[in-house]
Amino acid sequence: MITPTPAIILLSGGLDSATCLAIARDQGFAPLYTMAFDYGQRHRHELIAAAQLAADGAVREHRVIRIDLRQFGGSALTGDAAVPKDRDESQMSAAGVPITYVPARNTIFLAYALAWAEVLDAPNVFIGVNAIDYSGYPDCRPDFIEAFQRAANLGTKFAGRFKIHAPLIHLTKAQIIRRGTELGVDYGQTHSCYDPDETGAACGHCDSCLLRKKGFEDAGVPDPTRYHA
Amino acid sequence: MITPTPAIILLSGGLDSATCLAIARDQGFAPLYTMAFDYGQRHRHELIAAAQLAADGAVREHRVIRIDLRQFGGSALTGDAAVPKDRDESQMSAAGVPITYVPARNTIFLAYALAWAEVLDAPNVFIGVNAIDYSGYPDCRPDFIEAFQRAANLGTKFAGRFKIHAPLIHLTKAQIIRRGTELGVDYGQTHSCYDPDETGAACGHCDSCLLRKKGFEDAGVPDPTRYHA
Repeated sequence: MITPTPAIILLSGGLDSATCLAIARDQGFAPLYTMAFDYGQRHRHELIAAAQLAADGAVREHRVIRIDLRQFGGSALTGDAAVPKDRDESQMSAAGVPITYVPARNTIFLAYALAWAEVLDAPNVFIGVNAIDYSGYPDCRPDFIEAFQRAANLGTKFAGRFKIHAPLIHLTKAQIIRRGTELGVDYGQTHSCYDPDETGAACGHCDSCLLRKKGFEDAGVPDPTRYHA
Repeated sequence: MITPTPAIILLSGGLDSATCLAIARDQGFAPLYTMAFDYGQRHRHELIAAAQLAADGAVREHRVIRIDLRQFGGSALTGDAAVPKDRDESQMSAAGVPITYVPARNTIFLAYALAWAEVLDAPNVFIGVNAIDYSGYPDCRPDFIEAFQRAANLGTKFAGRFKIHAPLIHLTKAQIIRRGTELGVDYGQTHSCYDPDETGAACGHCDSCLLRKKGFEDAGVPDPTRYHA
């Protein structure tokens, strides 16, 4: 790419968003801007991982937006309920919208990304949503992403230029890990566990850990995750 | 209405949202929940007005959400540029997207309302946007509101039940004032000025004051606004 084409990447610090960042760089977007959200998560390890990933040389600026989703209640991720452990995939999907769902989270995240996009005039936003491995979150579905993009184009100066890139949306966890490994992502830097210990070591038993472990196995890639003893 | 039908009203403290609150009550929605945003406005008078309006007996809960839009820059309302004064309506509309536009503001506000709506299971949200008197804001247009509603239904558990009510969208300022006056709104409690003095008295010269003044004149309703000497 000759002309600089900036992009904003929603960077949670997890495996998916780290891969998204690598894909945006590989596709030639530059400079890159990353955005993380401090939304009253139970633990800070995700935010620390995001900051480390953003220390990548291709990132011009990393912003942490503090938003208080905890005041709305209603999710295990913000401390209102226990994180489920050792469920198999049929249990995860049979449960419908998971207890770890945070109300309207991706809508709020994309709204903030849109605001920053408009100020930077950077109408390309990357989000690491995935509809395959874990389809219980309604705000990870392709039709939601398309509908939000349409609303965003109507509600801003972009008038059609705003584009949400969701390059992982149809990939399995194993495919994501293989793609990221090709692009040099250090997954040891990423954090996925819903319930880590105080050192940031993963529990190995929550839905997120189980899907991640299985992803590395299926991909045939060594799992660099540090688990509790 | 026999069954309680709760609604959330985005309440800025201005004339429009105060009228919206009265319309929601008149339409039989109950209980009512109101939501204001502290987004780094230049002044606090709007938030004080919102809290006073929410002291209305029909409001079960008033929430003030602190969000930092100022860090994105780009608007006279958050202190980055001078508020324009004494423009006529042709100047206001000729200027395109006005300097008082805050990037993606209504998208962010509606995203938070959606989160609260999902937690309360209260899928009716009222917003006082208006496309007639001042059409320079892209996020006040009916097609944006419809597109956001569609995205919200896809991205949450509501699956079609979420509805954004924008009862003022096709009304002139004078029609809004007449409707609110019929419903008993005390417009002396509302705040519209972009550049008030420290006591909260309106400047009388910014776009918002000029449109408001003209609205009272056209409606034939005495203007209760307190202006600077």
